[in-house]
Amino acid sequence: MNIPRTSFPRIVIIGGGFAGVALAKKLSKQEVQVVLLDKNNYHTFQPLLYQVSTGGLEPDSIAYPIRKILKDFPNFYFRLADVEEIDANKNKIKTNIGNLKFDYLVVASGSTTNFFGNTEVEKYSMAMKTIPQSLNLRSLILENFEEALLTSDLNERNALMNFVIVGGGPTGVELAGALAEIKKGILPKDYPDLDTRLAQIHIIQSSDCILKGMSEKASAKAEDFLEKLGVNIWKNVRVTNYDGKTVTTNTDLTFETATVVWAAGVKGATIKGLDAEDFVTRGNRLLVNEFNQVKGYEHIFAIGDIACMASEAFPYGHPMMAQPAIQQGDQLGDNILELLESKPMKPFAYKDKGAMATIGRNKAVVDLEKWKFQGIFAWYVWMFVHLFFLIGFRNRMVVFVNWVYNYIRFDREARLIIRPFKNKLKH
Amino acid sequence: MNIPRTSFPRIVIIGGGFAGVALAKKLSKQEVQVVLLDKNNYHTFQPLLYQVSTGGLEPDSIAYPIRKILKDFPNFYFRLADVEEIDANKNKIKTNIGNLKFDYLVVASGSTTNFFGNTEVEKYSMAMKTIPQSLNLRSLILENFEEALLTSDLNERNALMNFVIVGGGPTGVELAGALAEIKKGILPKDYPDLDTRLAQIHIIQSSDCILKGMSEKASAKAEDFLEKLGVNIWKNVRVTNYDGKTVTTNTDLTFETATVVWAAGVKGATIKGLDAEDFVTRGNRLLVNEFNQVKGYEHIFAIGDIACMASEAFPYGHPMMAQPAIQQGDQLGDNILELLESKPMKPFAYKDKGAMATIGRNKAVVDLEKWKFQGIFAWYVWMFVHLFFLIGFRNRMVVFVNWVYNYIRFDREARLIIRPFKNKLKH
Repeated sequence: MNIPRTSFPRIVIIGGGFAGVALAKKLSKQEVQVVLLDKNNYHTFQPLLYQVSTGGLEPDSIAYPIRKILKDFPNFYFRLADVEEIDANKNKIKTNIGNLKFDYLVVASGSTTNFFGNTEVEKYSMAMKTIPQSLNLRSLILENFEEALLTSDLNERNALMNFVIVGGGPTGVELAGALAEIKKGILPKDYPDLDTRLAQIHIIQSSDCILKGMSEKASAKAEDFLEKLGVNIWKNVRVTNYDGKTVTTNTDLTFETATVVWAAGVKGATIKGLDAEDFVTRGNRLLVNEFNQVKGYEHIFAIGDIACMASEAFPYGHPMMAQPAIQQGDQLGDNILELLESKPMKPFAYKDKGAMATIGRNKAVVDLEKWKFQGIFAWYVWMFVHLFFLIGFRNRMVVFVNWVYNYIRFDREARLIIRPFKNKLKH
Repeated sequence: MNIPRTSFPRIVIIGGGFAGVALAKKLSKQEVQVVLLDKNNYHTFQPLLYQVSTGGLEPDSIAYPIRKILKDFPNFYFRLADVEEIDANKNKIKTNIGNLKFDYLVVASGSTTNFFGNTEVEKYSMAMKTIPQSLNLRSLILENFEEALLTSDLNERNALMNFVIVGGGPTGVELAGALAEIKKGILPKDYPDLDTRLAQIHIIQSSDCILKGMSEKASAKAEDFLEKLGVNIWKNVRVTNYDGKTVTTNTDLTFETATVVWAAGVKGATIKGLDAEDFVTRGNRLLVNEFNQVKGYEHIFAIGDIACMASEAFPYGHPMMAQPAIQQGDQLGDNILELLESKPMKPFAYKDKGAMATIGRNKAVVDLEKWKFQGIFAWYVWMFVHLFFLIGFRNRMVVFVNWVYNYIRFDREARLIIRPFKNKLKH
């Protein structure tokens, strides 16, 4: 890779997600060379992907060019690259655009959807972790409605209008709420010749409550909101398979559906060379110590979803969400600077800023440390926080305009099949 | 196709572009059944495609769901379909989703890029007539810059940063201007390690002036604006081939480039069954009479780009642009209603509302019937007119926000490679 060696130590960061970007910002204007590698040339604001899938937002307004985030930083290099292997002992990585030596390596490669080894489910169901995946889901939902118009077979039409979401975490809950609003507000107008009662939205949750990481009150209220929106919640049910037509479960329940969204789990996106049993723990995450150092190395770190820092409070590592990633990136920035001056690093301490999820119009749940609230005010807080954390003034403005419009008009205008997902409709 | 027969006559419209949508709107709330077919579920505002390609706008804000345009109209049916054949004598069309009988048929299938039979040029160069094509071009431009960073071969880097636009019509001119502004405003910040002087933008024009359809003054001024922006204009040069590496011309000139945008012409998108020599004239357009009736048929019409209504003023038909399409769609709506009441139809008379093109920041040219002007005021007029003709309040707001942002910040934030175009970068 064409990157000049300078007298500054070279820090290579793999991944431009919340963790990688927070770290890179921290290291800007310091006497280090930073090389950030990502498969995409943009940072994705994952918490709003479900709105892209449901036509509420453009993909472009929840993505941000990585080069632009870091454009004013000297000694900063970005490369669009897929990291194929890490040679930890030779301080080298192998990528699709060549090899690169590092002085310090930070793995911030994030997570991917966890299908728990079920290849059939993986083949037929939709994930929603990236922008292209979210756009595929958007296309599929709309293509299903178009197809439902064409069939006179009631079972087939049912399957096309049935949406099964596996997993009742924030992603599943937010997607279900948005689909329920489409069913109520848009389907009857766009498809007057379809019986919209056929459109059923199911959440399948393996445990006994949704939004498991949140408070009991938030969980109960979210369930209440969803049920009022007509979403069917199936608790204590575990999906065993999906063959493209039928979802089977560990109970008698089965679902005939053309659309399964798999939001039942994520796993660390490990990279060859650091993926041996030695390094990897539950959820396919890299074991790190309290300084985010990968087990056995002083100059290799992991932060964000990929890192598992086990502690008393978090025996299986921090939740795989934006906040721990940002905080770890931030702190590692400080720690690397300390390390370079041979000063002691500070152990990471997670500040839990709370959690929130939106269910729909005027309906959200928010858990803060000392205050848990639900309903319209929670919804405003949810919107404010998401706008605040979105990178870029333009993105904030565009998202704001869309939200105001969608709110006033009960609408979602980005219901466009720009790249058809089903083969037969490709052109 | 699953569309109920009613006592109303059925009018089938092929294509939801400017012409088809204008016609459908005109026929709304009348005692007719309207079936609109399109390959996409959205209407595309083609005049702004070049801004999608150059990262200035999201694709979603220049597209509009067709179902939504027509949602309040009774007796209206939309189907996402590819029309494969027209059986004019049996009043039937064949599509990928089944057959459909019609009482009246209106072909509004628009136009596609005309490569004038050069399959190699078609294979290697980029077109910009649809949203997916524009997004492909956006990806390619950005991928080229990323790749230019990786090579130490100066010729290869040159080719990657060289942009050749074939055709100096409005599309070519507007794209060239936007690329020149990217070169000036964004490249130096995003790619500090690239010598941006290498980025050359060429327009190749076969005749002796650009913006041929406009006034001499507009053409001269546009040329002046482009030259000030650093665009190279090659007049009286005709491209003979492009093999993916080298553009050859009818002169000694050749261009080494990884990107050729073919904006040198369009041709009617004819459909099997009405594509025999009898019907088709110059530019692959369907011959129609002054009522837009296809030669030999009383109940089959063609409007917009696909229709060639030869007259004294327009011996080869009207220009293939939005205005004639909208006006023909409008008028045909009235005429069909007259026809249904057995009243005489009115011949079409084109009202030329003028033409305009933007070159860049504060730089546009406008030709009205009695007033031709260029510069900053023209640029405001251009923006106002484009916002006005864009369908949908949300789209207008989002485009407006983007334009204000881009203007103030000299920026284009949608420089995202969401779907990589080059195979090697696909993931």
